[in-house]
Amino acid sequence: MENQNHEEQEEEQIVTPWEVTAEKGGKIDYDKLIDKFGCQRLDQSLIDRVARLTRRPPHVFLRRGVFFAHRDFTDVLDAYERGERFYLYTGRGPSSEALHLGHLVPFMFTKYLQDAFKVPLVIQLTDDEKCMWKNLSVEESQRLARENAKDIIACGFDVSRTFIFSDFDYVGGSFYKNMVKIAKCVTYNKVVGIFGFSGEDHIGKVSFPPVQAAPSFPSSFPHLFSDKDNHRCLIPCAIDQDPYFRMTRDVAPRLGYHKPALIESSFFPALQGETGKMSASDPNSAIYVTDSAKDIKNKINRYAFSGGQDSIENHRKYGANLEVDIPIKYLGFFLEDDAELEYIRTEYGAGRMLTGEVKKRLIEVLTELVERHRRARAAVTDEMVDAFMAVRPLPNMFS
Amino acid sequence: MENQNHEEQEEEQIVTPWEVTAEKGGKIDYDKLIDKFGCQRLDQSLIDRVARLTRRPPHVFLRRGVFFAHRDFTDVLDAYERGERFYLYTGRGPSSEALHLGHLVPFMFTKYLQDAFKVPLVIQLTDDEKCMWKNLSVEESQRLARENAKDIIACGFDVSRTFIFSDFDYVGGSFYKNMVKIAKCVTYNKVVGIFGFSGEDHIGKVSFPPVQAAPSFPSSFPHLFSDKDNHRCLIPCAIDQDPYFRMTRDVAPRLGYHKPALIESSFFPALQGETGKMSASDPNSAIYVTDSAKDIKNKINRYAFSGGQDSIENHRKYGANLEVDIPIKYLGFFLEDDAELEYIRTEYGAGRMLTGEVKKRLIEVLTELVERHRRARAAVTDEMVDAFMAVRPLPNMFS
Repeated sequence: MENQNHEEQEEEQIVTPWEVTAEKGGKIDYDKLIDKFGCQRLDQSLIDRVARLTRRPPHVFLRRGVFFAHRDFTDVLDAYERGERFYLYTGRGPSSEALHLGHLVPFMFTKYLQDAFKVPLVIQLTDDEKCMWKNLSVEESQRLARENAKDIIACGFDVSRTFIFSDFDYVGGSFYKNMVKIAKCVTYNKVVGIFGFSGEDHIGKVSFPPVQAAPSFPSSFPHLFSDKDNHRCLIPCAIDQDPYFRMTRDVAPRLGYHKPALIESSFFPALQGETGKMSASDPNSAIYVTDSAKDIKNKINRYAFSGGQDSIENHRKYGANLEVDIPIKYLGFFLEDDAELEYIRTEYGAGRMLTGEVKKRLIEVLTELVERHRRARAAVTDEMVDAFMAVRPLPNMFS
Repeated sequence: MENQNHEEQEEEQIVTPWEVTAEKGGKIDYDKLIDKFGCQRLDQSLIDRVARLTRRPPHVFLRRGVFFAHRDFTDVLDAYERGERFYLYTGRGPSSEALHLGHLVPFMFTKYLQDAFKVPLVIQLTDDEKCMWKNLSVEESQRLARENAKDIIACGFDVSRTFIFSDFDYVGGSFYKNMVKIAKCVTYNKVVGIFGFSGEDHIGKVSFPPVQAAPSFPSSFPHLFSDKDNHRCLIPCAIDQDPYFRMTRDVAPRLGYHKPALIESSFFPALQGETGKMSASDPNSAIYVTDSAKDIKNKINRYAFSGGQDSIENHRKYGANLEVDIPIKYLGFFLEDDAELEYIRTEYGAGRMLTGEVKKRLIEVLTELVERHRRARAAVTDEMVDAFMAVRPLPNMFS
């Protein structure tokens, strides 16, 4: 059995919270992932419904299929229409000082959801996870959690509706009780099946899934929700986090809780091409929110994989291959103007626009985005971090 | 391999935190246990040293070999003689309303140690463990923890030197950080080797050993000890808890902490005979602190296994077999007067004293003990429980 699995793994794509690898030489096959995980595709009628319900245009990440899959999102919208309440839960594992653009994607989208639905939000910083997986000290993981909180706050969250917490600070009490209740419902064999742990993995890893599961249940936050609240939870995240919440959804009914709903994104591609997530170990594979304008220009010009042809003559003749072109992908995430994006796609695809011109536009877009983030982050004071992370009731929960 | 283990198990005695079974038809072989676990015998010279250092006679549980094994107790005494500080740590899994006499043994002994050495004490109530192993609800486990705390307090602990905590209340912060640090150092294979978990066990069980390990380190109690304190920890417990602390001792040096020292007791035998621990499922196997004088009399007379002969004639001729006689064992625990105990042993062993007479004396001793406990427990108010369980500095830590 072990050998068989190993062979399968070499052929098939791997998507776990710790590893994202496409099939050899290919791209992540998201249709296959939806089938394998058993989630649903987020189709146009659902996007239209979100627009109707929130009375605002759908976020660019919805319009362009960045968030492409879901679990029970329809149920959340049904409940919302009936006047029932839900809350948002997302998170980050603080393993590095500086975030890259891919890290911002779930937070930008979550901010849109918070504004559009006027709902409370909990953001988990899994400093305990990173301490265990990345072998960071407790102190270093906590420092990174706080630094990352500043970048998250810089995305514009509403402090009157947002609770940010670090596990090392917050685990305990009602949260720990839910961890224990969850853990009771999950066998070791089950987590091995879901996460692929081995006997040589330390027991901290085996203990962690309930920590990430617990925020899916409102009773983990007694300062926000009362005992009798059984609000639905909607989790915006990249699809590699799905295993945690498959497990959580299995457990929920046995505890008398709602299953958390999910809205899941594809991965933000590396500059070198779309074969997985960006590699934290190669700084030239990503644009960081700390990169200077010069860094951004250099990285895009040097490393962004181009679908353009190898000579101007061929490019004019055949046009660019948009399917593999990274500047086009990145513009798809961050150029808000649909008409301009369509224009660039058409012109570039037909060979009338050159790679250099597309990259120039991307450099403008990213430089502005990063500069805006930098200004916003610089304005985040320690007092603001304390305010977001204080265990307190949220004044504007559902208004 | 599995079959082999199984056969071994049928032949050998089993001592784990959840199961204590003697070899078929025999008694627990404590010498074998010392060899297997790799702890040391607590010999007379060590007992004499305790008496010298504390300037009081050794506790009856020391004199009579109830606490018979240790790990690094000598180091603790060396440190104590050098003027260094240590603290005591013991605990209870609150799985039942009423405690039986066996449950009192570690607490009676710990109280003696606290008084004799004038040291602080932490008592862990593992309500999380019992919630997971006994399938109790969180609320019921917490209720039992608080009820059990009253019985523990009734043993006479000094509130100015004692912190009692329930895991559901206290896990978090520095305690959780130590749990994570410990968990990082222990593989799944390792806990399977130590505790015998299987793949079908839930992950709560796998996650629990670090919870019982964490109180061994002073940094788990920042309200008691400062960051720089690296006091030694001495754990009085029954020897079935040894696996937890073998694991803890393995981990300690990697975290820069002292290994906890242990002083370990044999098991308090069931009324029916000395083949293991008492069974919680059979109320007639034990004397409970809630038993009436009539209950005690009935249970001892009916169920206490006698080493006396089957007729008075034979008894006068051959005498009682003290090795298997439960009244003699129980008197060994609770009759303080060495001379009287020796007298009874001699007379009973020689057949000059009858089983009924020995049982009568035991009934007196236990009735008085249980009555004293009942009075002490009735005097324990909710305010006292709150005071013991408050997270606060201890005023008389080392004085």
